[in-house]
Amino acid sequence: MNADWIDLIEKMRQGSVRALSRLVSRVENRDPGWMEAMQQIYPLSGQARLIGITGSPGAGKSTLTNGMARELVSKGFKVGIIAVDPSSPFSGGSLLGDRVRMKDLWDLDEVFIRSMATRGALGGLNQSARDVANLLDAFGKDFVLIETVGVGQDEVEVVRAADLVLVVCVPGQGDGVQALKAGIMEIADIFVVNKADREGAEELFLDIQSMLDMDSNQDKPRPPVLRTTANQNQGLPELVVSVLDLLKSSRHRQAWKKIRIREELIGLLEKQLTGWIKDQWEKDGDLEKAVRQIERRERDPYSIVRERLDHLMQNMRKDDPSGKR
Amino acid sequence: MNADWIDLIEKMRQGSVRALSRLVSRVENRDPGWMEAMQQIYPLSGQARLIGITGSPGAGKSTLTNGMARELVSKGFKVGIIAVDPSSPFSGGSLLGDRVRMKDLWDLDEVFIRSMATRGALGGLNQSARDVANLLDAFGKDFVLIETVGVGQDEVEVVRAADLVLVVCVPGQGDGVQALKAGIMEIADIFVVNKADREGAEELFLDIQSMLDMDSNQDKPRPPVLRTTANQNQGLPELVVSVLDLLKSSRHRQAWKKIRIREELIGLLEKQLTGWIKDQWEKDGDLEKAVRQIERRERDPYSIVRERLDHLMQNMRKDDPSGKR
Repeated sequence: MNADWIDLIEKMRQGSVRALSRLVSRVENRDPGWMEAMQQIYPLSGQARLIGITGSPGAGKSTLTNGMARELVSKGFKVGIIAVDPSSPFSGGSLLGDRVRMKDLWDLDEVFIRSMATRGALGGLNQSARDVANLLDAFGKDFVLIETVGVGQDEVEVVRAADLVLVVCVPGQGDGVQALKAGIMEIADIFVVNKADREGAEELFLDIQSMLDMDSNQDKPRPPVLRTTANQNQGLPELVVSVLDLLKSSRHRQAWKKIRIREELIGLLEKQLTGWIKDQWEKDGDLEKAVRQIERRERDPYSIVRERLDHLMQNMRKDDPSGKR
Repeated sequence: MNADWIDLIEKMRQGSVRALSRLVSRVENRDPGWMEAMQQIYPLSGQARLIGITGSPGAGKSTLTNGMARELVSKGFKVGIIAVDPSSPFSGGSLLGDRVRMKDLWDLDEVFIRSMATRGALGGLNQSARDVANLLDAFGKDFVLIETVGVGQDEVEVVRAADLVLVVCVPGQGDGVQALKAGIMEIADIFVVNKADREGAEELFLDIQSMLDMDSNQDKPRPPVLRTTANQNQGLPELVVSVLDLLKSSRHRQAWKKIRIREELIGLLEKQLTGWIKDQWEKDGDLEKAVRQIERRERDPYSIVRERLDHLMQNMRKDDPSGKR
C-alpha cells in the first residue's frame, strides 16, 4: 500500500469528504492496494446500520430515500446513500443520478450520496456496494441507505445484504400481490405503500396485508405495512420511527448477519481468485489454443473446462493430502 | 454419465421435444453429469444463428419475437426462443411466460419456447442461456431468438453473446437517445422502432438516425433502423429480411465470436471452480471460524480472503515451477 492510500485514509479519518470520495472511487476501480486499504479501514467500521430500499421502477424510491435521509438527519444521524442504478442502457440512470440528487440534498452536509452503475462493477455489484458501505461506515455514518431497483439478480442481492429491507410498492402497477409471490417476501422487513394518495392505494395495502396473513414463515416477525406519499413528505416520520424500532428488535437479523459475512467472504475470494485463474490461463497460452480449437469445432468448451479444472484441483489437492487446509 | 442422460440424448437426436425439454431442465439445474452430457451434445451444434432481442420493459419484445419466429418458420426455418425474464420479484415475469406464449405459438411445431428466470440460474444466467442455446442448436434449430429486457448487467450480457443483436425502442418512453448514450450502441446491429403507429415514432426514428450519424465507430457497419408494429404484424417480413442479409455479411462478428468463446470458457471454468473452492472452505471449517472472527470484529474479511488466496495460489504455483501449465 503506497503513500497515496495512507494519505487518503488519514484524511478520511479526519473527516475529509473529498478523501472519502476518492477512496470510494479507487476501491470501486480495484486500484492496486485496494484490499490492503480496506483492511486498514475495516476496523473503523461496524457502527452503521444498512437499510435496503427496493421496489419496481417508478415506485418513487429515490424520493423516499431522500426523504428518509432528511428525516434521519433531523434526528441527528449521519447518513450515506448508495443508489444502485440499473445498468440499463435504457434508463440511463446513473448518468444523471448524482447530480439531480445532490441538488435535492446539497444543503445537508450530513448526507453523502454515491451512485453506482450496475454495469462494470469490477468487484461485482454486490461486493462493490458492500465495500462502499464499509467505507461510509468507517467514515462515521450512522445509516447507509442502499437503494436499488428490484430487477435483475445482482440488484436484488444488494439489498439482501442490508440490516433491514424496505420494499416499496405503488398503486396501479399491479405488482402488489406478485411481489409477494415471487420471493420478495422473505427479504422484506417493512412494506411501504408509496404514492398513497393515489387511487388503488388502499386496495394495494389490503392486498399486501392479506398476503402476509397467509404467510406461514415464523422465522421473522410480520413486516409492518406503512403508507407514504414521499413527494409530499407524508408518512416519512412514521416510517423512520418504524425503521428505528425494528432495528432495535431485529433478533432475526443476527442469523442473517452470519450469512451475510459468509457470502461476503466467499464473494471476495471468488472474485479475486477467478481474476487470477483467468490471467494464468491467458498467460500460458492455453486459453488462446482452446479458443481456436473450439472455433474450428475440433473440441467443445465443456471438455476443455473439465480438463483445466481437473488440473487445477489436482494441484491443490496434491499439496494438501490431509485435506485440512 | 448415467444411462438416463444417454437415453435422453438419444431421444433428443431422434427429434423428441420432450427429451429436449428434459435435457434443458437438467442442464439448467446442473444435475450430476451435465457437463459430460453437454460434451456429447456440443458436436451436434454449430448450425444455429443466435439473435438477441433487447429493449426496455413494455417495448413489445415478446410480440416482436413471436412475430419474427412465425416469419422465419414461414420461410422454412426451425426456431427456438429463449425468453429471459427479469427475475424481478415485481414483474413476476416467467411465472406466466411459457404458457401465454405457448398459446400464441402452440400450432407451430417448429418453434420451441423456453423461459428462464434470471434469479437462481445455477450456472449464471449468461452461461445457462448459452447452454440452452447449444441444446436447441444441437436439436436442429436454425435460429435461436434470445429475448431479454435491457435492465441488469446479466441480462444485457446474455444478448451480447448473440450473432446479431436487435435493440427495440418504442415511442413515448423517452429512451431513444439515452439508449444510444449509455452503451447499447456497440452491441446493436439493428434498431427496431416498434409500435411505429404511435405518436412520436417518427421523432424516435430520426433521433436514432442522428445519433448514428454522430457515431464514429468504424469497426462495424451502421445499423439499419427499421419500423415495426409487431402486434399488427407490420414490418416483420422486412425485419426478417434485414436480419438474414446482415447475418450473411456479418464480418465484424467473426472477431466477436472469438471473444464469445473466450468468455464462455472462462465463465464455465470460474463457475465450476468457485463452487469447489467454496465447498473446500466450508469443509475444512476455516470458513465458519472466519465468520465468527469477523462477527466478533476480531478480524476483517479482506485480510482473511488475502490469506486464503495466498494459500491457494501458492499450492498451485508450487506444483508448477515452470509456470507453463
